Amino acid sequence: MTDKVFTAALIIIGDEILSGRTQDKNTAYIAENLNKIGVRLMEVRVIPDDRQKIIDTVNEMRDTENGGHDYVFTTGGIGPTHDDITAESIAAAFGVELELRDDAYAELLAYYKDESEITESRKKMAYIPKGGELIDNPVSGAPGIKIGNVFIMAGVPRIMQSMFDAVAPTLKGGKSVISRSVTADLPESIIADGLAVVQNNYDDVSIGSYPKYQNGKFGTSLVMRGINEDSLEKAVNDVAELVKSLGEDNPIIA
Amino acid sequence: MTDKVFTAALIIIGDEILSGRTQDKNTAYIAENLNKIGVRLMEVRVIPDDRQKIIDTVNEMRDTENGGHDYVFTTGGIGPTHDDITAESIAAAFGVELELRDDAYAELLAYYKDESEITESRKKMAYIPKGGELIDNPVSGAPGIKIGNVFIMAGVPRIMQSMFDAVAPTLKGGKSVISRSVTADLPESIIADGLAVVQNNYDDVSIGSYPKYQNGKFGTSLVMRGINEDSLEKAVNDVAELVKSLGEDNPIIA
Repeated sequence: MTDKVFTAALIIIGDEILSGRTQDKNTAYIAENLNKIGVRLMEVRVIPDDRQKIIDTVNEMRDTENGGHDYVFTTGGIGPTHDDITAESIAAAFGVELELRDDAYAELLAYYKDESEITESRKKMAYIPKGGELIDNPVSGAPGIKIGNVFIMAGVPRIMQSMFDAVAPTLKGGKSVISRSVTADLPESIIADGLAVVQNNYDDVSIGSYPKYQNGKFGTSLVMRGINEDSLEKAVNDVAELVKSLGEDNPIIA
Repeated sequence: MTDKVFTAALIIIGDEILSGRTQDKNTAYIAENLNKIGVRLMEVRVIPDDRQKIIDTVNEMRDTENGGHDYVFTTGGIGPTHDDITAESIAAAFGVELELRDDAYAELLAYYKDESEITESRKKMAYIPKGGELIDNPVSGAPGIKIGNVFIMAGVPRIMQSMFDAVAPTLKGGKSVISRSVTADLPESIIADGLAVVQNNYDDVSIGSYPKYQNGKFGTSLVMRGINEDSLEKAVNDVAELVKSLGEDNPIIA
């Protein structure tokens, strides 16, 4: 068992997120499922469908020697339309050509059934950066792509999830971070002093305080994270006692 | 009227988004409302509650001479708890000290009513980077902060929105991008060839194609964006005609 911490970045490629038209639904899925295999999502970037921006961002994020990450995931921009420029941009980031690949074409053909259905636009989805491996897409035929430590996935959540699920078992991870929580109907400013004391008692537990505001009332979720179960359990108990002492009769412990 | 394009970046500071525990709800609000005042959101970064990462990211995004943006918004990490390190980190990014400010303290006092209620943790929220201006927080007392071209806001959506609404009228913007859409129950790969032709006919309209997948059926939203209303209207008509010719009897035009 290694103690290396495995990290990942997510690059969301899409004007539609930056215009506010579409709400990203992929970050939470990827974050949670990376954590299950002991990989920590360290950064998310949402960028436009812009060739140079894609190239620069992918190259920065994949450079493990200079602050980059073990794994880089991208979502969006791999469809058949003129605004789908992710594959060609990432090919450029790696300094390789796109090539029409028989295996990718075969996947399209299996999906569309007949050669006559493979229009020029659809055929575009069989062009893969040289050296890339295909990621299976059981939903809509057009494959995702793995090249180096970069995983190019679709933006549509249902398709992205099936691609991610195909990739996840192939990734190497470290210890999973375990997460516990104590939720109280108290404003976090009441809890803050005592919480800092609890945090100081645990080197190996990270305590986050997340305020919420609903129907004119404040509440707080206190989230304990770490890889040491014993410490976590103790910290959860300390925090539960703390909020009880401050007037919360029924903290929700999860 | 200037033709300068005003741009913005959003930095979401929060371990809870990166762990998948919380879904960001602020991007769409900020994006849409920036667009209304003619400012384009060009990049979103989600980063951990990490001092150096906050410093580096803020300094990169605010540097208008080197690929940065006219306005930088941050959300999260300005509360009373030990993990709220945004204000001190951004002070460090600007190379200034935090100072206890009478005006910020007065806002806290107006909210908490009595000096005895201003615990050490709550008092922390009255420490403001030197040279910063307060952003009013009618919801929970603790102010947001404007320093240089950086706007430091709360992470709780209801509070963030009230801060953003206070700031927005003070920002200078350019022409608003108008957005129109045509939605069809067709997979985008059928539309792609014709759509590329329409796109080639309009220099001043950007056409995006956004596939969706629901209940085993594909549909596509085609979004036209630009600042020239006449061109937009023509492009919308062309795209509507295109999807009708491909078998969509009732495109939704919005």
